[in-house]
Amino acid sequence: QSSSTSHQNSGEPSKQKRVMVIGGDGYCGWATALHLSKKGYDVAIVDSLIRRLFDHQLGLDSLTPISSIHDRLRCWKSLTGKTIELYIGDICDFEFLAETFNSFEPDAVVHFGEQRSAPYSMIDRSRAVFTQHNNVIGTLNVLFAIKEFRDQCHLVKLGTMGEYGTPNIDIEEGYITITHNGRTDTLPYPKQASSFYHLSKVHDSNNIAFTCKAWGIRATDLNQGVRCTKSSAIGLIMMGFCVQAAVGHPLTVYGKGGQTRGYLDIRDTVQCVELAIANPAQPGEFRVFNQFTEQFSVNELASLVTKAGAKLGLDVKTISVPNPRVEAEEHYYNAKHTKLIELGLQPHLLSDSLLDSLLNFAIKFKDRVDTKQIMPSVSWKKIGVKPKTVAA
Amino acid sequence: QSSSTSHQNSGEPSKQKRVMVIGGDGYCGWATALHLSKKGYDVAIVDSLIRRLFDHQLGLDSLTPISSIHDRLRCWKSLTGKTIELYIGDICDFEFLAETFNSFEPDAVVHFGEQRSAPYSMIDRSRAVFTQHNNVIGTLNVLFAIKEFRDQCHLVKLGTMGEYGTPNIDIEEGYITITHNGRTDTLPYPKQASSFYHLSKVHDSNNIAFTCKAWGIRATDLNQGVRCTKSSAIGLIMMGFCVQAAVGHPLTVYGKGGQTRGYLDIRDTVQCVELAIANPAQPGEFRVFNQFTEQFSVNELASLVTKAGAKLGLDVKTISVPNPRVEAEEHYYNAKHTKLIELGLQPHLLSDSLLDSLLNFAIKFKDRVDTKQIMPSVSWKKIGVKPKTVAA
Ligand SMILES: NC(=O)c1ccc[n+]([C@@H]2O[C@H](COP(=O)([O-])OP(=O)(O)OC[C@H]3O[C@@H](n4cnc5c(N)ncnc54)[C@H](O)[C@@H]3O)[C@@H](O)[C@H]2O)c1
Ligand SMILES: NC(=O)c1ccc[n+]([C@@H]2O[C@H](COP(=O)([O-])OP(=O)(O)OC[C@H]3O[C@@H](n4cnc5c(N)ncnc54)[C@H](O)[C@@H]3O)[C@@H](O)[C@H]2O)c1
Repeated sequence: QSSSTSHQNSGEPSKQKRVMVIGGDGYCGWATALHLSKKGYDVAIVDSLIRRLFDHQLGLDSLTPISSIHDRLRCWKSLTGKTIELYIGDICDFEFLAETFNSFEPDAVVHFGEQRSAPYSMIDRSRAVFTQHNNVIGTLNVLFAIKEFRDQCHLVKLGTMGEYGTPNIDIEEGYITITHNGRTDTLPYPKQASSFYHLSKVHDSNNIAFTCKAWGIRATDLNQGVRCTKSSAIGLIMMGFCVQAAVGHPLTVYGKGGQTRGYLDIRDTVQCVELAIANPAQPGEFRVFNQFTEQFSVNELASLVTKAGAKLGLDVKTISVPNPRVEAEEHYYNAKHTKLIELGLQPHLLSDSLLDSLLNFAIKFKDRVDTKQIMPSVSWKKIGVKPKTVAA
Repeated sequence: QSSSTSHQNSGEPSKQKRVMVIGGDGYCGWATALHLSKKGYDVAIVDSLIRRLFDHQLGLDSLTPISSIHDRLRCWKSLTGKTIELYIGDICDFEFLAETFNSFEPDAVVHFGEQRSAPYSMIDRSRAVFTQHNNVIGTLNVLFAIKEFRDQCHLVKLGTMGEYGTPNIDIEEGYITITHNGRTDTLPYPKQASSFYHLSKVHDSNNIAFTCKAWGIRATDLNQGVRCTKSSAIGLIMMGFCVQAAVGHPLTVYGKGGQTRGYLDIRDTVQCVELAIANPAQPGEFRVFNQFTEQFSVNELASLVTKAGAKLGLDVKTISVPNPRVEAEEHYYNAKHTKLIELGLQPHLLSDSLLDSLLNFAIKFKDRVDTKQIMPSVSWKKIGVKPKTVAA
């Protein structure tokens, strides 16, 4: 199954698969690029580095310091002898993207390269517009580049479980079979996204589905859940709780805390992407996988952290704060996630040991935490049209 | 029911409702602006006039000559004594849009102001990107302007029946109640759009639905069918057939001709918009109406025109040409359209007399028809990344 859809321009028989990782300077993209490089794929990273700019603008110093992409690639080369190619530019600039396609000639493109923060997309009008423009036009350009330059190239696109919202019926993987007035059809699963960021992912999914049908593009949409592990991103509930526990701040639960979501470990992100690449979609096929391994409510997560904290001698309290988001706080949630397991995914579950290591990690770096940043500052209702300076 | 949600800034009791018609220089928008002005509403037109530029660029001379918006407004004033205000600018420019809101203070916004041609959106990459950017960002800006400046203003947005595609089950009005694994929920109707233009409408619908929920916006989405009447637009099947019959060209049916769609008369477009304005959505409500009155397959339309032609002594033939679009050519189609009827819509059906007048109209203006333009020139599959010059 891991035989390559060969590098089109070469006469040689079994060359390595060439994988372009868009957004490879980011959290998931970097981990994926390293994993694929280690596994013997030829890897190129495409990134505008814009995420670093956002972090500076918002005063979000990462919990872990992030060295430059050039340093990281040099370090990787010296550790493993492997070269990862680097193309710095914006995929909304089609001339740049065309260059990267014609120079690298990918067999698969893993597309992580989007503005991926829901609160960021809800700060003000210009960030909402930026998020939708950047994500939708970037993905359109990738689709056109594949059609024009590498028509057999497999697109592996990162979506999010948040596209589905919280319907009162089971969430299926991308499609649902509906019987209505005596007739039956299998249709795209209805989406109910709840931020301009999540909406941009829904728009992407719709655009990709159309090009698969109209042009025969092969695509896999990985609807990822929330990752829980050593992440630099504020706002990921799990890490947020560990940080709060570490600095002695009560765990802040938005509203009733019944909000339930799917979670997965970063090690499973890279595993899932590799499985998708090794088993590509057929020409014209738009495959959707729900990429998470466990589901928890916010209250369940808080009590896991409270217990883990107690073992380390921390006295962890929980408080409820007004929910800045507009979302159901008590709802049914049952999302399917069997397709990646069928392809061979071996999940890393949120065991006690992972939680312990997260907490220890947060304790170690707690001096880097700006406690002003802990309380929610972006409100779904207070978003306005004036450009907003978020942190001082 | 036609009592006004009063002009917020004034102390006077029963002022006329103020309606902003975005895209009021266009085909539907102009007819709507005149109708509302005649009915006593205070009307303003907002338009960038970009549609006129497209027509020049593509060499699409209109069948009926279109005089300048300034001339038309002067003419309206001299005929009726009524003034329609005019704001010329691009709604993607938020500063301009904010100006129009603060100056005109609308109680309702009717939003026709989008790139509305599916073939145009499929010419090349840059037109696909333009269509999605123009439509999605324009609508986002309108939503932000309402939230910020006129939070009680009712948005009446033109969508299209094409958002639904051709599912194998009945098409409902915006939402569908699904029972799945023993649980039931009413969810947004699944969409399967089939051009970058139709996709832009789906993106709009999703964005609007979210802001109704998150911000309490009141909105009505009118999923309009294909209009059949004296239209200037090439590509509307019905008018296309009449033109072909008039110039003695065989009616060109794409592929098998089983493609079925909903149709309506332009007089019903303006009626529907007025009904929506007079009966506004509630705060937070996202209402969806399917706005068409009859459904026909392409073959049915061809045979109607053939019969009407025979009465006028024309010998009308039909030929099948390869379908440039990617779409099902034989499919189930049954779309609901009762909500506007319930509000009081009195449909103008495609009676013999309308068809006769369409045909006579086409015969009168047949010298203005460029026969090279009759055959399809935009292919859904041949779209590429190089800017394309369409007509010579
Ligand atoms: N982090 C999560 O829990 C999570 C959950 C679901 C889905 N996802 C998705 O996974 C992907 C990666 O997430 P992440 O946490 O690694 O985000 P990240 O912000 O760390 O990485 C995204 C990278 O993409 C780059 N980028 C953005 N726009 C670009 C453009 N126009 N051109 C070139 N590069 C661009 C950024 O510079 C950044 O390096 C995103 O698409 C995100 O939506 C993440
Ligand atoms: N014609 C149909 O059969 C049909 C069917 C379904 C839906 N609709 C919808 O009805 C609406 C009007 O259709 P129409 O046939 O009158 O189209 P049209 O092209 O004649 O009118 C659209 C008008 O909007 C203006 N416009 C476009 N982008 C703008 C922007 N960014 N800022 C300001 N003005 C802008 C154009 O200049 C034009 O005058 C469209 O949204 C269309 O999608 C039409």
